[in-house]
Amino acid sequence: MSTSTSLILSARDLEFMLFEWLDVERLSERPRFAEHDRESYDALLALCERLATDHFATHYRKSDTEEPVFDGEKVRLIPEIGAALEKLAEADLLTLTLDEELGGLQVPHVVASACTAWFTAANIGTAAYAFLTVANARLLLAHGTAEQVERFVQPMLEGRFFGTMTLSEPHAGSSLGDVITRAVPADDGTHRIFGSKMWISGGDHEMGDNIVHLVLAKLPDAPAGSRGISLFIVPKFLVGDDGSIGERNDVALAGINHKLGNRGTVNTAPVFGGGAYTPGGAAGAVGYLVGEPHKGLSYMFHMMNAARLGVGMSATTTAYTAYLKSLDYARTRPQGRPLAAADPTSPQVPIIQHADVRRMLLAQKSYVEGAMALNLYCARLLDEQATAEDEAERLAVAQLLDVLTPIAKSWPSQWGQESNSLAIQVLGGSGYTRDYDLEAHWRDQRLNPIHEGTHGIQALDLLGRKVLGGGGASLLTLAGRMGETVARARALGGEPESYAVALQAMVDRLGEVTLGLAGLGDPERTMANATVYLEAVGHVVVAWMWLEQLVAVGERAGDFYDGKRAAARYFFRWELPKVTPMLDLLASGDTTTLEMREAWF
Amino acid sequence: MSTSTSLILSARDLEFMLFEWLDVERLSERPRFAEHDRESYDALLALCERLATDHFATHYRKSDTEEPVFDGEKVRLIPEIGAALEKLAEADLLTLTLDEELGGLQVPHVVASACTAWFTAANIGTAAYAFLTVANARLLLAHGTAEQVERFVQPMLEGRFFGTMTLSEPHAGSSLGDVITRAVPADDGTHRIFGSKMWISGGDHEMGDNIVHLVLAKLPDAPAGSRGISLFIVPKFLVGDDGSIGERNDVALAGINHKLGNRGTVNTAPVFGGGAYTPGGAAGAVGYLVGEPHKGLSYMFHMMNAARLGVGMSATTTAYTAYLKSLDYARTRPQGRPLAAADPTSPQVPIIQHADVRRMLLAQKSYVEGAMALNLYCARLLDEQATAEDEAERLAVAQLLDVLTPIAKSWPSQWGQESNSLAIQVLGGSGYTRDYDLEAHWRDQRLNPIHEGTHGIQALDLLGRKVLGGGGASLLTLAGRMGETVARARALGGEPESYAVALQAMVDRLGEVTLGLAGLGDPERTMANATVYLEAVGHVVVAWMWLEQLVAVGERAGDFYDGKRAAARYFFRWELPKVTPMLDLLASGDTTTLEMREAWF
Repeated sequence: MSTSTSLILSARDLEFMLFEWLDVERLSERPRFAEHDRESYDALLALCERLATDHFATHYRKSDTEEPVFDGEKVRLIPEIGAALEKLAEADLLTLTLDEELGGLQVPHVVASACTAWFTAANIGTAAYAFLTVANARLLLAHGTAEQVERFVQPMLEGRFFGTMTLSEPHAGSSLGDVITRAVPADDGTHRIFGSKMWISGGDHEMGDNIVHLVLAKLPDAPAGSRGISLFIVPKFLVGDDGSIGERNDVALAGINHKLGNRGTVNTAPVFGGGAYTPGGAAGAVGYLVGEPHKGLSYMFHMMNAARLGVGMSATTTAYTAYLKSLDYARTRPQGRPLAAADPTSPQVPIIQHADVRRMLLAQKSYVEGAMALNLYCARLLDEQATAEDEAERLAVAQLLDVLTPIAKSWPSQWGQESNSLAIQVLGGSGYTRDYDLEAHWRDQRLNPIHEGTHGIQALDLLGRKVLGGGGASLLTLAGRMGETVARARALGGEPESYAVALQAMVDRLGEVTLGLAGLGDPERTMANATVYLEAVGHVVVAWMWLEQLVAVGERAGDFYDGKRAAARYFFRWELPKVTPMLDLLASGDTTTLEMREAWF
Repeated sequence: MSTSTSLILSARDLEFMLFEWLDVERLSERPRFAEHDRESYDALLALCERLATDHFATHYRKSDTEEPVFDGEKVRLIPEIGAALEKLAEADLLTLTLDEELGGLQVPHVVASACTAWFTAANIGTAAYAFLTVANARLLLAHGTAEQVERFVQPMLEGRFFGTMTLSEPHAGSSLGDVITRAVPADDGTHRIFGSKMWISGGDHEMGDNIVHLVLAKLPDAPAGSRGISLFIVPKFLVGDDGSIGERNDVALAGINHKLGNRGTVNTAPVFGGGAYTPGGAAGAVGYLVGEPHKGLSYMFHMMNAARLGVGMSATTTAYTAYLKSLDYARTRPQGRPLAAADPTSPQVPIIQHADVRRMLLAQKSYVEGAMALNLYCARLLDEQATAEDEAERLAVAQLLDVLTPIAKSWPSQWGQESNSLAIQVLGGSGYTRDYDLEAHWRDQRLNPIHEGTHGIQALDLLGRKVLGGGGASLLTLAGRMGETVARARALGGEPESYAVALQAMVDRLGEVTLGLAGLGDPERTMANATVYLEAVGHVVVAWMWLEQLVAVGERAGDFYDGKRAAARYFFRWELPKVTPMLDLLASGDTTTLEMREAWF
């Protein structure tokens, strides 16, 4: 058992989730993971904890206060960022889940997620460069040619090249169908790219040898809207057949964005084909088509599901580390006395002894451990999907992942913010200063309901595409999984049984409400309160995650397990009941926001 | 009617609240306000809007990015802060509510609050220096000697001196009974002060001629705890009998605090009697006792009620201006198309046309206008109290103010944060950049649940002192006032009637729950969930404020009134129902947080 007292994450909690709850060791029964065992997982997790502690957490504060600078030509980052990323690549941590034949470690996603969590918790700004690069590489592995993989992907997985996702434009963020960047076919089979992009993380810097941009652009014959968007590789420097770094491509920066938080990750406004460079003596940035024309957005969406799960985990860990830091403060900071203590000369007590401070800590615990459970559960589903024994199993798992992805992205983003706010509040005035990390984590967190699809976009995705789009089948699959947990909890009796009853009642109600929405017969009305639907389902799902943990705890004795019981109790007594007014509102078919007119504001 | 399109506040909404709802003109029937009329109020409000627009809003961003600097000796602020404060003093706006015989304008508090609102909305960091000084001056007017008033208060009201509230110490923030700063009597009737303070806003700077610190300290014979604390005037520079600025007093800075937001207001850690100076050749900072020994904390608490109402208004206006700025953006930013629009070549529409954006704007509207109504209502009560015709009326109003003060402080602080977050969300990625003010308002807001008594302290104050401490009488008074509104709303029929029924049911339930808590017979259990109680009462009170506004709207036609109707509808359909699970929790006597043990975290 781990005895770590890290303020980054709780190794003990990860151990519980992976091995006592999600039963990761059983995955080794599947051929894909046969070479791994508990010992190798423990070693890997310990390595991540150590690297995160020694090379990522160490410059968390500095990367916030000394944010990236763009001098009109180059972007300069503090050197600790590049140094930490080199350590990550050296330790082969960029290829955790990849197939062995591609040089990967073929580790289960659920373990890799826990590994990743150490780095995003320690320093999300630095970790982001690596995970963007991996996401880029994975997309090219799925849709690129062998030559593209060799030329661009291998160097990314070795940590020599970095990658970006270059989607948004100044006038097209959520509405990607409106991108206007152009791709003009060249005689040599490549394309020339012209256009301005926006919100591109890692869009320029001096780390590594090259940056591989994955750029959405429109071919001359493209149909309008989202069906006419193609995907291109546009490297910062051209790469020779032998892998050598060649001429500078026409990728320049119009500027960088100055953000509220998440400052370590440079966010840029790149210009492609603006004329700053003329590779090969011609105008435009050289781009290489990925896959088929006009299918770029679907390739991106495939990647985006993984990115959304990644944002969820970042949100969770940003809240998790803040929880641990506020807990540490509360254990040691003396202030005030218990209500019953009448003697003003008695010594002040640590603030953790005040009921309201315990409330704020317990709420955080229930949010961060509930969110972590959800993120790891989804990662476990990725493994089930990859190793499904038949198509029916694979489909059921895919459906579940589909419906859980917007939740796993949005719930930690929303409640992580609340959790980060409580962490500040525990510290009082100190929490409001930059002497402590809490305010920075709170600022970092605010990005998560915005990027990779806003909170509102997740809601449309969940209700419109994932639930109603599939005729409700995914919700039935989800309810079925929840029902299995409910049955196991009922069998335990006591508190688990009572929470199981409460959860089942809420799931049943959710089903009714969903049917009601589907039956409104007016898409505008059906979708009007989609955000409330997202938030209601989110709370039900996290309650389920707590019931799952409670079942795993079973009869085990000890402070750790009692803590799990208390946090589950908190979630069922304090949080789940908040769903009722949400479902009431949805059931009423409320049209308040729909009918609100612009002139009334 | 005002046609202002300010992004600071809505002059039209203030006009509605003051003159159509709170009937401020009728206050002129009372002798104290006989010299004022609608015309003079309009002129005063217009003056405030103009000064706030021209001299406060102009450097809002700059005072955030160029925060105060302490070079080891002096604190330097950007010059715009001092220039704006001079304008405020020149316009006689520091003495709005003071008696004419004290040189004041004798304006009703409710109007003065609306005036103040313009400045805190435009630039809370700059406005804070003025309002701290006024709070200091008011305390001395109530408890100081004539000589102290002449020497220190008059220059403050003229804008020549600034004032602070010097309460907290590094180890004593919420627990003021634990201050250890010492006051040693000197032969000349003054005292010498020794001690370190913390979190002192405006604690040093170069504006004006002097800074008047009101300092809590303990006399040698002081009883332990909060009953042994005295209050002293400790000026930065000694002041001669003729008002001349004399020797430097022994007040120095250990440093300044670097905050998340609210950066324009310097926050300091002053040291009194640390030996940096030796006024009169002796050790210690020269201090002058205010009022009687050992009564300092009660004087401060008197001031603190006003300060808490002030924090509430700051919270409201910080959210209000952000709402207007996000609304302005939503009206003009094109992105995406309506759900029903299938043609991707049709132009993008302003985002205000999306239901979820309207939801975020309407929620903000319901929060900021609800909070503004509460703040102005409380200010109106101050006027009723000051002009009560008999003692019974005065007591009833005082009781109401007592019970509403923790709500008027905490509710805008809590829901203002949510509102500020929605304002960011409306802008998406842009909201996350420092190119827009939204992120700064959000950071500013985070201070409000912390200073002048944390959220948790307000909860103990409400349930412990204000409600149960008075045997529930204040809650009955409050319920009585709400009952009057309910009766008027019922008479209107339609929507107001249905909301009146909903509010009355919630008030009745609140009464039952309060009785239940009182009857638990165990103070720890009674108080364990005080924060939930605070939040539940807060939502009920703001629902009442919306019903009040709805009654004032009556049958009036037009977009403005339809907007009020929609926001009231939003609050009653979306917000008030959230109170039910809170009251359920309180009714259950839940002990989850109370029983949580430190070892379980």
